[in-house]
Amino acid sequence: MVWWQLVNNAEIAAISSTTALQRERISVSVLKFGGTSVKNLARIQHVAEIVRDRLTAGAKILVVVSAMGDTTDYLLKLGSQCAKSPDRRELDSLLSTGEQISITLLAMTLQELGIRSRSFTASQIGIFTEKVHSKARIVDINSANLNRALEHNDVLVVAGFQGVTADGDITTLGRGGSDTTACALAAAIGADVCDIYTDVDGIYTADPNVIAEARLLKRVSYGEVIEMARLGAQVLHPRAVELARQYKVRMRVRNTFKPDHEGTVIDEGDGENMEIYRSISGVAVDKDQSCVTIMNVPDKPGIAGRIMQALAENNIVIDMIMQAFHPTAGHNNITFTVHVSDLDQTIKTLESIKDDLDASSVISDPDIAKVSLIGAGLAGQSGIAATIFNSFGAAGINIKMIATSEMKLTCVVSAADADRASKIMHSSFGEEE
Amino acid sequence: MVWWQLVNNAEIAAISSTTALQRERISVSVLKFGGTSVKNLARIQHVAEIVRDRLTAGAKILVVVSAMGDTTDYLLKLGSQCAKSPDRRELDSLLSTGEQISITLLAMTLQELGIRSRSFTASQIGIFTEKVHSKARIVDINSANLNRALEHNDVLVVAGFQGVTADGDITTLGRGGSDTTACALAAAIGADVCDIYTDVDGIYTADPNVIAEARLLKRVSYGEVIEMARLGAQVLHPRAVELARQYKVRMRVRNTFKPDHEGTVIDEGDGENMEIYRSISGVAVDKDQSCVTIMNVPDKPGIAGRIMQALAENNIVIDMIMQAFHPTAGHNNITFTVHVSDLDQTIKTLESIKDDLDASSVISDPDIAKVSLIGAGLAGQSGIAATIFNSFGAAGINIKMIATSEMKLTCVVSAADADRASKIMHSSFGEEE
Repeated sequence: MVWWQLVNNAEIAAISSTTALQRERISVSVLKFGGTSVKNLARIQHVAEIVRDRLTAGAKILVVVSAMGDTTDYLLKLGSQCAKSPDRRELDSLLSTGEQISITLLAMTLQELGIRSRSFTASQIGIFTEKVHSKARIVDINSANLNRALEHNDVLVVAGFQGVTADGDITTLGRGGSDTTACALAAAIGADVCDIYTDVDGIYTADPNVIAEARLLKRVSYGEVIEMARLGAQVLHPRAVELARQYKVRMRVRNTFKPDHEGTVIDEGDGENMEIYRSISGVAVDKDQSCVTIMNVPDKPGIAGRIMQALAENNIVIDMIMQAFHPTAGHNNITFTVHVSDLDQTIKTLESIKDDLDASSVISDPDIAKVSLIGAGLAGQSGIAATIFNSFGAAGINIKMIATSEMKLTCVVSAADADRASKIMHSSFGEEE
Repeated sequence: MVWWQLVNNAEIAAISSTTALQRERISVSVLKFGGTSVKNLARIQHVAEIVRDRLTAGAKILVVVSAMGDTTDYLLKLGSQCAKSPDRRELDSLLSTGEQISITLLAMTLQELGIRSRSFTASQIGIFTEKVHSKARIVDINSANLNRALEHNDVLVVAGFQGVTADGDITTLGRGGSDTTACALAAAIGADVCDIYTDVDGIYTADPNVIAEARLLKRVSYGEVIEMARLGAQVLHPRAVELARQYKVRMRVRNTFKPDHEGTVIDEGDGENMEIYRSISGVAVDKDQSCVTIMNVPDKPGIAGRIMQALAENNIVIDMIMQAFHPTAGHNNITFTVHVSDLDQTIKTLESIKDDLDASSVISDPDIAKVSLIGAGLAGQSGIAATIFNSFGAAGINIKMIATSEMKLTCVVSAADADRASKIMHSSFGEEE
């Protein structure tokens, strides 16, 4: 009943506390730990010790954590056993309990180490998102709440991956959600750094599990990481890096299990000794993609727009698009790639509009992979593309789709060819260097 | 940022919606299901079917559920592994995830049956409590929120056991919390009935597992149930019944596994054929109690008050108190009973004030039980007490403490003697009937 008064007062209180923090120049770091880093209580203890060791006099730390290990998958499975296609509002509320468990356990563990700490869900600290379930974007963060909580605590533990709508529904941010939470909080609080702790040493020029020659990057620009991540480097989600770039948040990727390792710094770059100036910075493989084709669509204006709108209304993000015109029939086949988790919904959506569009059928291929070469200098080097296409051909690798941009060259191949294709790409890049 | 505006608008919207509900005389029932009733997905499905069968045209249902099976114990154990004495704010937030999981799963299951349903945590629907963790009392319920949610849904699924403070901290209501949530919601919404579904047929004159002659009560008064529950009948928590009495909420205890069984009605009674007028209504056994004695406290004014204050500050509820004076020494032994879950905290609290009080030591006995005879007409029947004490003596049962009130006669005995003592009590009551 008195919510509006309380929150209104909080706004006022917050102005003075923000001023206080600015006046005293308190340093705040954001540290994000993924599900592997908190998968059991021993690891939560380890994370608490990293946080303790990072906590210097007068400084404050904001820790963002994901759900423990496979909790999210377990909850998803529970939900799918209750309903064939569970309501997304309910599913988001269900999934959000995963982070609520990990934040409370970490806060307790930190307190046991003598650290003034408290946990906050997205609702509690005020991470507001749009009204979209399972893929919500953050629209606002209550930095007044954050500042007030930092006055009374040295470490805040905040739930990653989740948000809340203005009318109190719980949302989740989708893939890469916890990284996005961390960068958004770092931006809101003006943090010195946003460290993403994970189970690798940093960002490599390719997947070191596949390509032995892959090298660790010490420093890389936001733009290159966005291209790499979107293409499946899987270390950082591009949404998070985009947010960091927009708000000039300095990021680092670090290894939870080697806390003294320097990792990879991600920033704007200053033109000196930056790897951004190397022609090519890495190779990325994404095996979680699938291909969908809507066949024999009449070649009329507005058709592609209607398809894209129907997919957008279902919050399906499509990536590459290819339109193949059959001149004899006056019909097009429209092919695009979507994340495998969206495949069923994509097919369902297209089937529902197929007749309206006069299309003949919808076909799909879940067994594809995207293999990409990334580098700021790629646009000026058309010779590289020719080399790669020739090498693929010699190796018998069929290229299903091709896309290029200023910073990347992407080939869609069969999932079975993905590792061989990435090795060929990486060696051609090695030759160029 | 816009919370206060939204909530303010909600208040205004609520007035009209309350009016709408009243105008149309929509019938609302509250159904509460405990942890046993939702312990796995098959049981959640069963609960959803009970709800569906109860849903008649134009009527609305508000379902309150506990956490699934042993979830709360599991979460408590996780918490106790992170800290010797976990922070209660963090613990409450951790425990509240148990109900959040069960409400979302039940809402999904109801939706799968074609029912318009949504889940709500205490924060989302607005069950406000005082700022006390692990044992909070409800201070307000946002009935405007409830009415609005009922306009758009036929079934609301609300998390039991939890609340939220005015500044957004999650609280839990302690033992019997979900029953209390159900009765409070029934009062706030003006429900026709509050049905507590459990794993027994209703309220018996004694524990039917111990006493074969125990009879099911068809109707019983709030007052008698409060006495029975406080003494361990374990079917309903007295807090919930007290709330129901205060707001004249008609309650029923029903069996989840025999949904057609009538159960026991609890109301004020109308003086006709009410079992309240029988001399004695039942026997209750509570084995979850323990005895604590603070030894050799100087016989000075204010000492008992200081002890009680110290316990109250730690939110420890004590039940029976006995003070034994040792005239030769001018010292008292003060003995009281507390719930076993509070025993450690009670001992710790007393040890911390022991020296200030000039007491010699604190001793405890966890192996006790309270056995009680309950009935509105008990006060006028002193012969029953004498019969019981004699029978106990003949059976070699030592009575450690005795307490009486208008409606009950309680004996504290060794836990080992509890079942025998309750049988003796029940047979003496049978003789009286």
